[in-house]
Amino acid sequence: MKTPSSLLLLTEALRHLPGVGPKSAQRMAYHLLQHDRDGAALLGRALTQAVDQIRHCSLCNTFTENDLCEVCLDADRDATLLCVVETPTDQLMIEQTLTYKGLYFVLMGRLSPLDGIGPKDLQLEKLIARATDGVVAEVVLATNFTNEGEATAHYISETMKARGLKVSRLARGVPVGGELEYVDAGTIARAMLDRRAT
Amino acid sequence: MKTPSSLLLLTEALRHLPGVGPKSAQRMAYHLLQHDRDGAALLGRALTQAVDQIRHCSLCNTFTENDLCEVCLDADRDATLLCVVETPTDQLMIEQTLTYKGLYFVLMGRLSPLDGIGPKDLQLEKLIARATDGVVAEVVLATNFTNEGEATAHYISETMKARGLKVSRLARGVPVGGELEYVDAGTIARAMLDRRAT
Ligand SMILES: [Zn+2]
Ligand SMILES: [Zn+2]
Repeated sequence: MKTPSSLLLLTEALRHLPGVGPKSAQRMAYHLLQHDRDGAALLGRALTQAVDQIRHCSLCNTFTENDLCEVCLDADRDATLLCVVETPTDQLMIEQTLTYKGLYFVLMGRLSPLDGIGPKDLQLEKLIARATDGVVAEVVLATNFTNEGEATAHYISETMKARGLKVSRLARGVPVGGELEYVDAGTIARAMLDRRAT
Repeated sequence: MKTPSSLLLLTEALRHLPGVGPKSAQRMAYHLLQHDRDGAALLGRALTQAVDQIRHCSLCNTFTENDLCEVCLDADRDATLLCVVETPTDQLMIEQTLTYKGLYFVLMGRLSPLDGIGPKDLQLEKLIARATDGVVAEVVLATNFTNEGEATAHYISETMKARGLKVSRLARGVPVGGELEYVDAGTIARAMLDRRAT
């Protein structure tokens, strides 16, 4: 008894999704083929299209379909402020507080020695080049207040201060150990207003 | 601040996967675009191809790329025996015991009134037509020994006996409440050999 090859391929391919093991990959494949073929076709097209069209903003590193993202193109932003966040979601959380009108740099991760993610993997050269453009005067560190986020902030702070930049960190209104994505906007607003030099 | 539309589409499409909510869809999208674009492209192609090529065997209802699956085409099978299982995985478990040489019918589900899955949704007409081909003499019920599997077995048993067919059920070597997929082959072999008329 042989499983059809396109079903085997699909089950294998589903394992590229984070957190999906062999059992759940099989359950997903059966579900899609049995109950949601339109959804499967849609997801197939969405993946192909996203891989084709999504790249990184050449200034802030976030996901975009163009060379520069919308925020970086916005002339009303204060170009002397550069806020460093871990993910696009974190950036969105800060935007929603309406307390910050500067620009951003999105790390797309954090330093994580245990997972083998060092400064090179985070492309910190791109951040350094961005922050030393002669216009940026203050770097606001808004990485998470986890151990890894704090270590990342510390590393970037040292690097930036060595280049003569003013560096600040969101105030500790954010609970220690907390992740921005799960904190309410009021707390983030407080922390943004209370940011302090490091 | 606007998320690129192809990224929004991808995040939405990932929610067609069972058990994936908005947060994990976003995590999956970021992971694929940031760390595994080849995997994302592969999964996109695999989904498109599977939807295109996979259909149901016109005899046993399992997934196949042809009109008939390999098992149904096997002339060495005992065509007087028809074993009813819930999923292709359950069929594979039974095949591995080497205790059964008849044919199969794969329900691709089970009766589940709470989820609104009744006899029509399970396409039981297809099973009835298959079992009353004049060759099948015994229907072996190998649905799971869960409440829903037992109810499904009971319903099919009544339907088949009303049509003069002999009906048997795997013996209760399978633990009550257990699912075939997680039971060892020895237990399933014992249950197959001890199957009893219902
Ligand atoms: Zn940008
Ligand atoms: Zn078949």
